[in-house]
Amino acid sequence: METKNIGLRGIEVADTRISNIDGQNGRLIYRGFDIIDLTQNSTFEETAYILLYDRLPTLPELNEFRAKLVDARAIPKQMQRNMANWKKDADPMDMLQAFVAALAGYYDEEFSTKEASYDRAITLIAKIPTIVASWQRLRNGLEIVDPDPRLTHASNFLYMMSGVVPDPEVEKVFDTCLILHADHTFNASTFTARQVASTRAHMYSAASAAIGALSGELHGGANTEVMKMLLDIDQVGHVESWIREQMGMGNRIMGMGHAVYRTFDPRAQVLKEMSRRAARKTGQRWFDITEKVETTTMAEMKAQKNRDIYPNVDLYSASIYYMLGIPMDMNTPIFAISRVVGWAAHIIEEKFAEAAPKPALYRPKAVYVGKYCGPEGCEYKTIDLR
Amino acid sequence: METKNIGLRGIEVADTRISNIDGQNGRLIYRGFDIIDLTQNSTFEETAYILLYDRLPTLPELNEFRAKLVDARAIPKQMQRNMANWKKDADPMDMLQAFVAALAGYYDEEFSTKEASYDRAITLIAKIPTIVASWQRLRNGLEIVDPDPRLTHASNFLYMMSGVVPDPEVEKVFDTCLILHADHTFNASTFTARQVASTRAHMYSAASAAIGALSGELHGGANTEVMKMLLDIDQVGHVESWIREQMGMGNRIMGMGHAVYRTFDPRAQVLKEMSRRAARKTGQRWFDITEKVETTTMAEMKAQKNRDIYPNVDLYSASIYYMLGIPMDMNTPIFAISRVVGWAAHIIEEKFAEAAPKPALYRPKAVYVGKYCGPEGCEYKTIDLR
Repeated sequence: METKNIGLRGIEVADTRISNIDGQNGRLIYRGFDIIDLTQNSTFEETAYILLYDRLPTLPELNEFRAKLVDARAIPKQMQRNMANWKKDADPMDMLQAFVAALAGYYDEEFSTKEASYDRAITLIAKIPTIVASWQRLRNGLEIVDPDPRLTHASNFLYMMSGVVPDPEVEKVFDTCLILHADHTFNASTFTARQVASTRAHMYSAASAAIGALSGELHGGANTEVMKMLLDIDQVGHVESWIREQMGMGNRIMGMGHAVYRTFDPRAQVLKEMSRRAARKTGQRWFDITEKVETTTMAEMKAQKNRDIYPNVDLYSASIYYMLGIPMDMNTPIFAISRVVGWAAHIIEEKFAEAAPKPALYRPKAVYVGKYCGPEGCEYKTIDLR
Repeated sequence: METKNIGLRGIEVADTRISNIDGQNGRLIYRGFDIIDLTQNSTFEETAYILLYDRLPTLPELNEFRAKLVDARAIPKQMQRNMANWKKDADPMDMLQAFVAALAGYYDEEFSTKEASYDRAITLIAKIPTIVASWQRLRNGLEIVDPDPRLTHASNFLYMMSGVVPDPEVEKVFDTCLILHADHTFNASTFTARQVASTRAHMYSAASAAIGALSGELHGGANTEVMKMLLDIDQVGHVESWIREQMGMGNRIMGMGHAVYRTFDPRAQVLKEMSRRAARKTGQRWFDITEKVETTTMAEMKAQKNRDIYPNVDLYSASIYYMLGIPMDMNTPIFAISRVVGWAAHIIEEKFAEAAPKPALYRPKAVYVGKYCGPEGCEYKTIDLR
């Protein structure tokens, strides 16, 4: 069917000033800045400022922004009690989707201005780590650890989750991971956020919906799937036979390949080096297995189908989080901790775009292929005649 | 910009067998059946069966389906406790978005088959009314009313909300409203549900996201806005000046106009007659005001812009719910009670479509209009140099 736009690939739906992927050259740009520059020179907090406000902050601006994030970290006691009474084996992404929607009860206002939207963005960015970390404590029967205002965003999250302030090297690795995942133009969760915002629903509603989209294994859920794969492979020596078997069955290899990049995903390159360092520090084998997955998949794809395939952002993040001691099902919530910056920036852009044409509510066309049954529809038979 | 597809209008994104809108002739078809036939001859439960399973049920099939819905109505006690501890002035749509996501903790399974998806659809359709009604009780400091297995879906919801079994005429009006709102092809919330499902997220996650989209005032939130308008107008004699003033300021009139229908929305026609009857029965003025809003807006649009405009589904549903004694902010949750049938059918179609090409994760293209700053991106200046 030629009329169909499978997965909307290539369909230009809106303007954006937020980020740009140069898939040919393997570059990702946030508001004009190369993410490689940002991982080397910036912090997650500053990157969030850049993504939200479209420019580098001055020192007073950055300090004010950081202070606002710190002030907004706590979540209501009532929410903590509900979280303590949540189903303990619930998936953390389902829990997060629910409690982000719940934030609206506490932090929304009836009238929405662009300025109020920035305040909500700060609320979301500040509180999502607290929700995720609190849940990790509570589901394990531990007391919630309150946020520590002296700690950075990255360090504070790891502290709230584990009760231990991470060393500066771990903090830097985690901060870099947060920078790398913060935005990626119109991926499925971000487009979901824009879609919901296009109905004029509020930001919490749109972000909660985006968390739902992120949870899918074809999107943010992939990094959890990568770690399951690594654990299943278990040994470097098993990689080749494992990959060949999976490819032989026509299965895709998690963490490999991307819809947009035609070369090495720049995020994967940075993450690969961090995974290598984490392995050196911890003495664990997960970097070696991951690298072997990469090279084997690339070689097999070339040999079997004469096609190039490259690692994506999920391949090396999985082993890093694992070696940092983060539970596997926290990988996707951590993705959300970072990506919420992009969602917020895109929701604000969707709602307050100044350029004409003004974005409209997204309502694509369906191709009806169902029953027609004559000009008046199918005949409705009463139940005794069926 | 010619390259852009504003709001995705006219962009064919996927096949569907579920419903079809004939915008020229003002007809809406569910699985081949004209909704006018269904409102005259069917029930909400049977319509749900038709939308999910693509055919009329036999009597044993319908009885089994009804029994499954009745059995699935209750929600977990733990969820009731959390709802009792929820923020009492939270918007019911935010509450609903949260608790639908929470259902996954209780009723999801790891492995998803088409059969399991039908079970989840029944869980959602059965429990959303219970969540909405329980919340209406709790936020008013009242005890939750347990579902009554002897009552129909429509009657049971009104009973759980008010504690009183509605008379058969009221039940029939409400059942008809549920039939009329159950599906409408790729509207914003349904497309959101399909979008989230396309990442392979589970059905609760997709339905929760759809609730977020429905809450926006350009979508399901519109029926609440219509009632606010009617209350603001207050008297039939005020309608003309009110409408002229709003149109003079360039404001759109809520409940009037639709992106797809080029004539009277068939749902609006049915709802108009029900609103007329409800007004006759209750002696209230809201039908008369609504009808005057319709005729005045049509006449003004014709006179000022030589354009035809027609009432949509939201115009007359608002006054019906109001005259049934339903609180205004329950209008959109009631929309969800019905539309969840369509969401579930579309999520199943998205996930298990047999036809090639297989739907892919929705990832449209952004048009980058932001900063380029040379081939290497903008220069990142350290903070002391800014």
